[in-house]
Amino acid sequence: MKRCKVTFQPVNQEIYVSPGITVKDAINLAGFEFDFPCGGRGKCGKCRLQIPTGAVAPTPAEQELLDEESLAKDFRLACLARITGDTVVELPYVTTPKHQILIAAVEKQIRLEPHLNKIYLEMDPPDLQHQQPDWEHLRDSTEQAGLTAGDKPALELLRALPQTLRAANWRVTVLADQEKIWGVEPLNTTDRLLGIAFDIGTTTVVGYLLDLRTGQELAAVSALNPQTRYGADVITRIAFASHEEGGLSELHEAIISELNGLIGEAAGQAGMQREDIYTVSVVGNTTMHHLFLGINPGNLALAPYIPVLQQPMVLTARELGLQVNPAGMIYALPNIAGYVGADTVGVLLATDLDWSEGIKLAIDIGTNGEIVLGSKERLVACSTAAGPAFEGSQISGGMRGTIGAIDHVRFDDGLKFTVIGGGRAQGICGSGLLDAVAGLLQQGIMDFRGRILSPDQLTAEAERYADRSVKLESGVKAFVLATAPETVDGRPIMITQGDIRELQLAKGAIAAGIQVLLERLGCDLDAVAEVLLAGAFGNYLDPHSACAIGLIPQALESRVRPVGNAAGAGAKAALLSRSEYRRAGMIADFTEYVELSAYPNFSHLFASCLNFPLG
Amino acid sequence: MKRCKVTFQPVNQEIYVSPGITVKDAINLAGFEFDFPCGGRGKCGKCRLQIPTGAVAPTPAEQELLDEESLAKDFRLACLARITGDTVVELPYVTTPKHQILIAAVEKQIRLEPHLNKIYLEMDPPDLQHQQPDWEHLRDSTEQAGLTAGDKPALELLRALPQTLRAANWRVTVLADQEKIWGVEPLNTTDRLLGIAFDIGTTTVVGYLLDLRTGQELAAVSALNPQTRYGADVITRIAFASHEEGGLSELHEAIISELNGLIGEAAGQAGMQREDIYTVSVVGNTTMHHLFLGINPGNLALAPYIPVLQQPMVLTARELGLQVNPAGMIYALPNIAGYVGADTVGVLLATDLDWSEGIKLAIDIGTNGEIVLGSKERLVACSTAAGPAFEGSQISGGMRGTIGAIDHVRFDDGLKFTVIGGGRAQGICGSGLLDAVAGLLQQGIMDFRGRILSPDQLTAEAERYADRSVKLESGVKAFVLATAPETVDGRPIMITQGDIRELQLAKGAIAAGIQVLLERLGCDLDAVAEVLLAGAFGNYLDPHSACAIGLIPQALESRVRPVGNAAGAGAKAALLSRSEYRRAGMIADFTEYVELSAYPNFSHLFASCLNFPLG
Repeated sequence: MKRCKVTFQPVNQEIYVSPGITVKDAINLAGFEFDFPCGGRGKCGKCRLQIPTGAVAPTPAEQELLDEESLAKDFRLACLARITGDTVVELPYVTTPKHQILIAAVEKQIRLEPHLNKIYLEMDPPDLQHQQPDWEHLRDSTEQAGLTAGDKPALELLRALPQTLRAANWRVTVLADQEKIWGVEPLNTTDRLLGIAFDIGTTTVVGYLLDLRTGQELAAVSALNPQTRYGADVITRIAFASHEEGGLSELHEAIISELNGLIGEAAGQAGMQREDIYTVSVVGNTTMHHLFLGINPGNLALAPYIPVLQQPMVLTARELGLQVNPAGMIYALPNIAGYVGADTVGVLLATDLDWSEGIKLAIDIGTNGEIVLGSKERLVACSTAAGPAFEGSQISGGMRGTIGAIDHVRFDDGLKFTVIGGGRAQGICGSGLLDAVAGLLQQGIMDFRGRILSPDQLTAEAERYADRSVKLESGVKAFVLATAPETVDGRPIMITQGDIRELQLAKGAIAAGIQVLLERLGCDLDAVAEVLLAGAFGNYLDPHSACAIGLIPQALESRVRPVGNAAGAGAKAALLSRSEYRRAGMIADFTEYVELSAYPNFSHLFASCLNFPLG
Repeated sequence: MKRCKVTFQPVNQEIYVSPGITVKDAINLAGFEFDFPCGGRGKCGKCRLQIPTGAVAPTPAEQELLDEESLAKDFRLACLARITGDTVVELPYVTTPKHQILIAAVEKQIRLEPHLNKIYLEMDPPDLQHQQPDWEHLRDSTEQAGLTAGDKPALELLRALPQTLRAANWRVTVLADQEKIWGVEPLNTTDRLLGIAFDIGTTTVVGYLLDLRTGQELAAVSALNPQTRYGADVITRIAFASHEEGGLSELHEAIISELNGLIGEAAGQAGMQREDIYTVSVVGNTTMHHLFLGINPGNLALAPYIPVLQQPMVLTARELGLQVNPAGMIYALPNIAGYVGADTVGVLLATDLDWSEGIKLAIDIGTNGEIVLGSKERLVACSTAAGPAFEGSQISGGMRGTIGAIDHVRFDDGLKFTVIGGGRAQGICGSGLLDAVAGLLQQGIMDFRGRILSPDQLTAEAERYADRSVKLESGVKAFVLATAPETVDGRPIMITQGDIRELQLAKGAIAAGIQVLLERLGCDLDAVAEVLLAGAFGNYLDPHSACAIGLIPQALESRVRPVGNAAGAGAKAALLSRSEYRRAGMIADFTEYVELSAYPNFSHLFASCLNFPLG
């Protein structure tokens, strides 16, 4: 989709936006503090500024509020002028935002701009000379207090309104956005305005409780996604949702119930109430997104893999039964495609990939592997079925990266490994498997095709591991990583020939995906300035091992940077700033999805990526 | 648990109930229409009926309200008598109440402009080269077909969308307004687009089923407002809603359930389905409006009489549980003030009073009397507590204008009256009472202060009615309108001195209201071009009688025009045309409400209006 470059002078800051938004929106998006005294309704004329390049013809209101000379000098009103092409905006003043928040993992500055605002009102009680109805009274008082809200009341608000106003003796706090007044509370509650950002992973759900007035993180909570009961990966859940009677509601209710538990837990940790939480943002892959909304993801499992919804979705907490404040709102981030979901949009938002000067490669390896490549000029994305091996699934001694898992392996000075939480090993997780296989390759215990060599095929250097290269009763070759005394259950932990094949499939899929995106963007490896690894696995893996086995091109090893749970950071950004949320929608529109199954010769390319690099 | 059999005669219908409930509850349970004018509080004594078997001893209130003879004959009050064993209840009347509702409207030209439009789409199925998500696919196809709808999908639509699109092989009909796509249906359903307009009166509910494509009326249905069980007038219902535990929901659910019944009945009459109905418009007085929405009207009963909401309210049928098409929408017309509601707005909309060149006086006498005076220049409105007498309540022989009611009385050539439905009289309704009292005045049987004269005070001309002027045992004077042989129960129907006092209060209130509005508008009677009488009562009353007793100024007699159920006609207009609906909002804003209780010297003015004109 076409985008416009907006350059702010004198600071020379550039951003990229979808056409049609106002200069006011662009200023907010760029994070500048700028005053809109009338709330951006084109009434006061105070937001005048110069737009030497790119502005459209002045609107009638601008012609009325600005004199001829100003108009001739390209002065416009920021709240009315719409961006239709590349635009230069001269800011009359530049102020550093009062509250600028650093989002963990990646260094991203956010200007606080909550979706919902609170305003405290002291209203005059009605009398026989002033018989204004309650709703109109509240609406007008809100507007007089400077908060521009729409005039369509929610039914639930009307039902509570007369009692609330009178019980509080006409001293109330209004909760509103530009569209609507969503809630009214007795007395002054402006000191309580929390939100919670959720990252719904296929396996794990994480929630971050934030104070929307300060950006402070008050609690972080996590739990296993209860849908794992119905299947470990998205495909089994899609099947359950679409083929089992009541399956969709069951999965939907499971996640809603878990989120409600986490909401209570987070509020408890922070010493607050559920009712203090007014906004909820959500990221997740497209399947998790659909199941969260109770939308059938069935067609994601069948070519041509069509999701129901891409765009951002705002709904009331009541609609989904989320137990926050009854007037609370939910902001689901948009998807890019059936297998590149709102979690990837969160990664891009957190890492500012859509505004990046240089080309970057972002990889989020979870149960699936989503890959995005590009810069402010263009972004291309694809998804690969990478997951199971990296999460320990389908691996003989595999387990998730929790206590007891071998997470790192070294061959430098004899075989050594570390176990999460210390103590004896219980299994091996993705990062450990990566290290182990990289070591087998580099020590010459396994050849570039992935075959474990027999003791008699080993080089002199590798001979010291000869007694670890075994043949199982089934005839399958294996490498003993942890001996019986080193493990919890007294049985050795092996890397079998089958495990290596699983890893080859996974790393080959991602390597092939990266190849396709490079081809699609028409760039070579030299042009890639940075490789951003998102997600828990991306954070734990050793970049050297990842490059050694060819998961990531070896040429990029020095440019690898883990960015932690960037999807979650994106959810936080979208929670703290409605401009960032809007930008998420622009990112979803801007990012081009590449369907690998329709890519010419993809299976050939994939096959060629199964082998390991020759070193 | 023990149960009791309750047998209703003469229809011989049996139900089984838990002991302890009242006969009133049993009547409601059995589904009979039965009037409880005081809301079942044992105050009015109007729900008397015979309980030959099973009733317990009469309560003190029954002993007070029923005479010895009646008690001896097992007459009880249904609202107080409790069922303790098997019981037989004699119903004095059995109604499948088809009240005489006037639905012929004023002549008003409407340009058809439905709130929701349908458009038929033939979409291209997606493939691997065109992987647009279902929602975006639908949204863009709709826009390409020329229907501009907003881009915020309803959650329910998304939940049904993937299945609908595929089952119909991408041939669907979209239902949308400018704000939103509300529904999607398989195949081409553009030939079905109905709406229903409801006029929710305090006593009667009327529904008009319209084809929104042609404006044709397909069915008209009506029913007693089921809330009459809880009280005959708005005040008793407000009290029930605000003081009884769960009272508000009970009243709300009663009306929703009745509307659902009427919707089914109307659709059946027209040979259509409920699901073919997509829009619902609603008028009613402010209390009915609030109860329909489930909003507490409690403050309407207390000075300064503040409603919760004035403005027009659009909501989904789903929100209120109205059983029309699941994507259906409700359009509630706005109110003007606590006692000048959406029904009056409907009258003004139907009569174009807000656009009138000349000054007109509109009077809608229902349970309350709303009066509006003015023209396109200015409209002023007030409300008077006129109702009960005109609807037969508080009148010794009073009843509503249904079968058995004396509706017209003539003294021209001896006393004659007509009975609705023919046959013997059961009581007298408002129009009959008006004629009767006008006659008593003009014949000289009653003086201008409303006193019934003794036979010895009568003029020669009036002497032929001397035997009808009687004194009751209680010492109260009365006029025998229908003699014992002329009535259903063999007891004469009287106009008592008390009845005349009630009528004086009612007509005095309206006359005073008219005076106030004339003063407020600063115009005299000569300037009033027309008097529009809305509502069933306005349609049935004899303008000559109304002027003779001073309900309407005598100078205006020749300018009186009945306009039928103009409130209902306004609801139809707002259903057929979204411009008319929008205009309703303007009318509500435009009309100035005059609070009579705050009007200087109102009580003095009211007192001066109690007397009858001198002729």
